[in-house]
Amino acid sequence: MTNKMLLSRLRRKLGDAVSTAPDDLARVSLDSARVPFRPDALVRPKSDEQVQQLLLLANKLGVPVTPRGAGSATTGAASPIHGGWVLDLSDWRKIRIDATSGMAHVEAGAVTKAINDAAEAKGWFYPPDPSSLKHCTIGGNIATNAGGLRGAKYGVTRDYVLALEGFLPTGEPVRWGAPLKKFASGFNLRDLWVGAEGMLGVTTRATLKLIPKPQSRWTCLAAFTNETQALRAVKQLLGLRVVPSILEFLDRQSVDCAQRRRGASFFPKTPACSLLLLELDGHPAAVRETRQVVQSLFKERALVTKQTADPEQAETLWEARRTCSQAMFQMGDTKLNEDVVVPVQGYQALLRYTLELRKLTGLATPTFGHVADGNFHVHLMYDHGDPAQCAQAERGLELLMEKVVALGGAITGEHGIGLAKSPFLSLQHTEAEIAAMKRIKDALDPNGILNPGKMFEPFRMWRAERDYNWTFPWDHHR
Amino acid sequence: MTNKMLLSRLRRKLGDAVSTAPDDLARVSLDSARVPFRPDALVRPKSDEQVQQLLLLANKLGVPVTPRGAGSATTGAASPIHGGWVLDLSDWRKIRIDATSGMAHVEAGAVTKAINDAAEAKGWFYPPDPSSLKHCTIGGNIATNAGGLRGAKYGVTRDYVLALEGFLPTGEPVRWGAPLKKFASGFNLRDLWVGAEGMLGVTTRATLKLIPKPQSRWTCLAAFTNETQALRAVKQLLGLRVVPSILEFLDRQSVDCAQRRRGASFFPKTPACSLLLLELDGHPAAVRETRQVVQSLFKERALVTKQTADPEQAETLWEARRTCSQAMFQMGDTKLNEDVVVPVQGYQALLRYTLELRKLTGLATPTFGHVADGNFHVHLMYDHGDPAQCAQAERGLELLMEKVVALGGAITGEHGIGLAKSPFLSLQHTEAEIAAMKRIKDALDPNGILNPGKMFEPFRMWRAERDYNWTFPWDHHR
Repeated sequence: MTNKMLLSRLRRKLGDAVSTAPDDLARVSLDSARVPFRPDALVRPKSDEQVQQLLLLANKLGVPVTPRGAGSATTGAASPIHGGWVLDLSDWRKIRIDATSGMAHVEAGAVTKAINDAAEAKGWFYPPDPSSLKHCTIGGNIATNAGGLRGAKYGVTRDYVLALEGFLPTGEPVRWGAPLKKFASGFNLRDLWVGAEGMLGVTTRATLKLIPKPQSRWTCLAAFTNETQALRAVKQLLGLRVVPSILEFLDRQSVDCAQRRRGASFFPKTPACSLLLLELDGHPAAVRETRQVVQSLFKERALVTKQTADPEQAETLWEARRTCSQAMFQMGDTKLNEDVVVPVQGYQALLRYTLELRKLTGLATPTFGHVADGNFHVHLMYDHGDPAQCAQAERGLELLMEKVVALGGAITGEHGIGLAKSPFLSLQHTEAEIAAMKRIKDALDPNGILNPGKMFEPFRMWRAERDYNWTFPWDHHR
Repeated sequence: MTNKMLLSRLRRKLGDAVSTAPDDLARVSLDSARVPFRPDALVRPKSDEQVQQLLLLANKLGVPVTPRGAGSATTGAASPIHGGWVLDLSDWRKIRIDATSGMAHVEAGAVTKAINDAAEAKGWFYPPDPSSLKHCTIGGNIATNAGGLRGAKYGVTRDYVLALEGFLPTGEPVRWGAPLKKFASGFNLRDLWVGAEGMLGVTTRATLKLIPKPQSRWTCLAAFTNETQALRAVKQLLGLRVVPSILEFLDRQSVDCAQRRRGASFFPKTPACSLLLLELDGHPAAVRETRQVVQSLFKERALVTKQTADPEQAETLWEARRTCSQAMFQMGDTKLNEDVVVPVQGYQALLRYTLELRKLTGLATPTFGHVADGNFHVHLMYDHGDPAQCAQAERGLELLMEKVVALGGAITGEHGIGLAKSPFLSLQHTEAEIAAMKRIKDALDPNGILNPGKMFEPFRMWRAERDYNWTFPWDHHR
């Protein structure tokens, strides 16, 4: 069947939910990884029935369907690499808070921050906070099991998903889990869907667990001579069973980027430093007590600190962390942004290796991360117009992934595989593990229509044509 | 091939790890549901290689393999209903605490309480506390996603599993997740294994997340006129965002059983009452503050309370809760112990229905439960020698399950399906959902050798021959 015939079948079923307008197709041809593949149609379903019709038809005709929210994925997971139809649920935004049960009932397109705002208005709290939280949708958060800054204390998206509603790739409506606090019936496909990157089913609605909002907060920015000193302090804190709500680490390269952008040092007397940004939250007395543990440790180990319990002042301490990522584009117009994880015993080795990589590749390797859970964002900065730099970046990336796995770590802690990590899946998992995953994919999606081409087909994204001119709503810092 | 030939093949591969001694076979022929099916052999592997050899051989020859820990399952999930070989991992008991990372590395046979003790010795805490915690193994906890009293605040087993090591039913070694705080690589088979009741793979080792041990605790036992009053107080507490570490509810029938056993009332002036047993834990200041909220609410709503922050005194407040379950055997020699869950909006309706069931069936329906997460243990007490009572118990059970599902609830919150709930799986899940679960089973276990006969084959356990004379180590209260 020609594309034209397929489209006419689609329009007959779904009418004005279907668009082939060039602007629409351009918008949904890529995600934040900027690897564009034009789909044949965009479908914005208005009802459950339309989602089902779309899947039944695609499954019958063998047309790829790529589900999508805001498109803030960093791995190309939402790029329709094999064309076909994009299923855009970003209009499904309803949020209802059950203030007695402490649950949020949300549609897949609800924006993460809107969920947290709705919860906070009723005294509850939805902790996962991916950095795109003002834009990203809960459907995408569920698809990638999105993390964020608060992971080490509060966990990630999966830890808050009680129930998922949606459709199998073959079109049957299903619910996994239940809007209940406990559920032990049948196999747990709920948590199989979470993190499956839209390859095993389409989530239309979710019920999320909420927790009471922490009463108070204390923020501290501390400067250390170098990465070694900062990471030693971290290891000591963790061993003292301090559980910060946030513990961000910035290496000297990242601090340097942020300082060059602002034109001044964060700590004038120590311009070259590695930073820790720590936040405690909870009951005021508990925060006070833990604060003393942190203060006494930092007094011994840090060069200098700034501290505050005032939310507005705290915002100023965040400047280095908030700006360093965009400031890195001074070092190259293109970034490989990895989200590796290593065990605490491997923190020092990883950071030493980022410096070795800088020497080996000649590229900047600024690194920051959620250090309480070992989730480091290692960046390789290069100019995509320079073939030698591209080759070095690719080499650096491969070496990094090998090192991470050798350290007992993970190639991805919060972004997922998508296209970006697909060449490294076999570093992380054995053949038997990957075969089991593929058998599950085949069992649920026998015609392979749902988000095909991801995870299991190695695709060197950095060699692909990328759209550096496309602007996303979250690009304003750039 | 005859059973004898199969056994000889097994012995050739696994030598003295194999036993066919009658005592051994009797021991592993049943679990706490007391539905015995004699296996052909017991295998106690001494190494990973032996686990693999067993599975490779069973898969090749099509012999059922039933994995097993202590056998404290209440659903018959560990009964080798189709015979074959029992894989007993209860000797695999190693526990290692990583006090810096806050993780426990454990073997499948490690006893839950031993894990918590090892963690506490280093200032850490493993919260899941199924009532069999002194006997049950972590492998069984993982297989059933075991809950416990602390679920509403601290979650269940799944919330603490970082990594699983083990074997696919086809014998390949696999690891799902990683001993890391974040992991987003590939499909999440870790959480698919958790709660899969040993049907999708054999877990040999796990890495568990630990949390810092709460510093202080406060316990309160409160008596209410009846269930309606007690549950109203609960709903109000939850709406005030009080998150107790424990909130146990006992209906008047359960309290009555416990009081008859001890020969005296817990509150002499109010012998007929429904009870709430509440525990707060955390920072002393936070506990103090929340305690005041609870006290003021109970002052208004409860008839009388007993309160303590002293661990030994607290133990005396636990008497009703600890003894009521065994005390129920005054009302009948046999118990159907259900573990249903309903949303908070359905608490009152469920409890009214247990009283209606008592009228309809003429059987006692004592009910207690973990009320902060809506997980109620509804019991039907009957004499198994009385066919009329047996019929009423079966009818009552069916009505209960229908009611629970009609209330938007779950047929099981912590025991799992096994044999006991298999007739009700299709009440809870649609045909499409069950078909998807079965396709996953077929994908991972194409020859159907691992714990066959459970979950998907309706089996009316209460009609089966049961071994009422078998004594388990956890039966000493009986």
